[in-house]
Amino acid sequence: MTSVVIPKARELTLPDLKDLARGCAFLGSGGGGDPHTAMMELEALIGPDSTVQLIDAGALGDRDLVVPCGWIGAPTVSAEKLPSGEEALLGLRRLETLLGRDADAVIPVEIGGSNGLAAVLLALRAGLPLVDCDGMGRAFPESQMVIFNIRGLRACPAVLTDDKGNCVVIEAVDNVGEERIARSASVALGGTCHLVEYPLSGRQVNETALCGTVTDALAIGRAIRLGREAHGDPFAALFAALKASQQFSRAGVLFDGKIVDIRRETKDGFSLGCAVIEAFGGAERLEVEFKNENLVARVGGEIRALVPDLITIVDRETAETIVTERLRYGQRVKVIGASAPAALCEPASLAVLGPQAFGLKTAYRGIAELNGWK
Amino acid sequence: MTSVVIPKARELTLPDLKDLARGCAFLGSGGGGDPHTAMMELEALIGPDSTVQLIDAGALGDRDLVVPCGWIGAPTVSAEKLPSGEEALLGLRRLETLLGRDADAVIPVEIGGSNGLAAVLLALRAGLPLVDCDGMGRAFPESQMVIFNIRGLRACPAVLTDDKGNCVVIEAVDNVGEERIARSASVALGGTCHLVEYPLSGRQVNETALCGTVTDALAIGRAIRLGREAHGDPFAALFAALKASQQFSRAGVLFDGKIVDIRRETKDGFSLGCAVIEAFGGAERLEVEFKNENLVARVGGEIRALVPDLITIVDRETAETIVTERLRYGQRVKVIGASAPAALCEPASLAVLGPQAFGLKTAYRGIAELNGWK
Repeated sequence: MTSVVIPKARELTLPDLKDLARGCAFLGSGGGGDPHTAMMELEALIGPDSTVQLIDAGALGDRDLVVPCGWIGAPTVSAEKLPSGEEALLGLRRLETLLGRDADAVIPVEIGGSNGLAAVLLALRAGLPLVDCDGMGRAFPESQMVIFNIRGLRACPAVLTDDKGNCVVIEAVDNVGEERIARSASVALGGTCHLVEYPLSGRQVNETALCGTVTDALAIGRAIRLGREAHGDPFAALFAALKASQQFSRAGVLFDGKIVDIRRETKDGFSLGCAVIEAFGGAERLEVEFKNENLVARVGGEIRALVPDLITIVDRETAETIVTERLRYGQRVKVIGASAPAALCEPASLAVLGPQAFGLKTAYRGIAELNGWK
Repeated sequence: MTSVVIPKARELTLPDLKDLARGCAFLGSGGGGDPHTAMMELEALIGPDSTVQLIDAGALGDRDLVVPCGWIGAPTVSAEKLPSGEEALLGLRRLETLLGRDADAVIPVEIGGSNGLAAVLLALRAGLPLVDCDGMGRAFPESQMVIFNIRGLRACPAVLTDDKGNCVVIEAVDNVGEERIARSASVALGGTCHLVEYPLSGRQVNETALCGTVTDALAIGRAIRLGREAHGDPFAALFAALKASQQFSRAGVLFDGKIVDIRRETKDGFSLGCAVIEAFGGAERLEVEFKNENLVARVGGEIRALVPDLITIVDRETAETIVTERLRYGQRVKVIGASAPAALCEPASLAVLGPQAFGLKTAYRGIAELNGWK
């Protein structure tokens, strides 16, 4: 088993960012977008000697302006519609003008998927530090499914920008309205666009954000790689990294098999669908439903994992995450379950992002309980 | 025949506004929304002694800021979703902040339907004069179908506001993008909302706007009423007013009969459909297709009128306009055709708002030619 040490005061280098991308993909629970494109953009942007400064939330001043950012839209679209690279900085500058002050730092609105890297890209372009935290501790399909909303903070002003230079400033009276308007505008802007929202003070970041998730993602991504390089089995290292993480303590393999069925549609700005995985040599099947992210895993109709716990489908040899829009018939996969950050499992959080918020009939039950993990 | 005189320097009183509402409904070509709700709002707002100042475009200073305004969305929705009354002023104030200066006057983005009155309401609330012109000379379903776009002016910044206080600032790189974003956001905001767009200088108003259309609408509305009161036949007076108008010289009755079929759906933020009118005692039928506004009228498959010429269905006794969302089986109607303002019939205009811009296969032919009017 590989031991992974991440230093406390950090400058992230290109190799770090590659590990981070792998970890973000894992934490996306199938969503947040494939980090592949964002990683290419990062590689084109960052020189061999340049770094991204990662700071702890505790290093922020109470009155610092911290800007959460990410992309909104269907991952199926973002896999094909490339960014211009100008979107994020255009949005940040517009927000700064609206607020009448400069930003001091950026954070990912969600650590999962390509949105974990979106904040790194903005930090690089704006010359700002990245704070070691995020708003979701994974990825969620709707923008109000974020700890900042759950804790009563305001999403607006929010700024949407696209690859053509279009800019939409949203000043909604509530956070669900912000999501509805942003979603609708994102469809008009071609199905995916950049969003800066929930402008926060340093104090609000410390009081609400899910801390350490950039470090967690980096450690997870690094563990997978090192485990694979050391002895060809990335899974023991992955579970060790999850156990040692700040936010994702319980994890395990839910299923091992081959994808035999996949249904998918892009609707109302989301990727919706279902994947069926059949055990090798057996009739047992696991079914995963997704709305951008994987929401529920059932084996023979029995629930094994429920949102907000993480359900990530990975290649059964390399442990590389297969995001929902890349799932294909015949892929050999393991389905990994991991417990969500504790803050997401409180009743106030579950009301916003638990199973019933997605129209599922069942109440949330933790993944450890569902699988009899001691 | 009644002679109608509108004074040159004008303060519009409540009786004037009632005539204006009737004329705007006629010029809507079936769309622009039923002025009924806007008229109720006006009656509640204007005292017996207060007036709205109507000025000629020539009275504007070259550098004055003139703000076109109106509602965007499906008229079928606006008939049921009442405004709060705060939308327009919220949007104007937001635009003023964006531009860093106060507005000097307002104009209707379209004179047709309730949008002719929307500008009157904003003028009253903001204490600004209303300029005697508009951007469409009638009503059109999409916001880029406006003379300001045809003449190369920019729609943005544009501000959408709704009854709950939500505000969306659109800074699109082109005017079709502005329409697409505004339409999409209007659906998210409940199907209809207020829009200020195409902020203009006084010089731009004089160079591009369709002048005299408020006066034209007022004269048309007054003629219908006076004709009806004087001798029970409003049609002769209506046609005299159209002939004397600045923008609508040719007009006539296209058909007289009973509505025997009406199809309607609300789709993508528009009211789409078709009405069939059967002649009394005859088998001849006129069919009108509409997209918010009436677009084409055919008798036995033969085209009698084509957008941008006006096609307005009116009650065959009172000559009151029946907007598309109020068409019902059994109504006894006359279908009136009138020539569009000349500026809308130029090739550059027809490319934006002619039959082919609506997906019709036929090129534009003028209503006088189609009906053999000498």
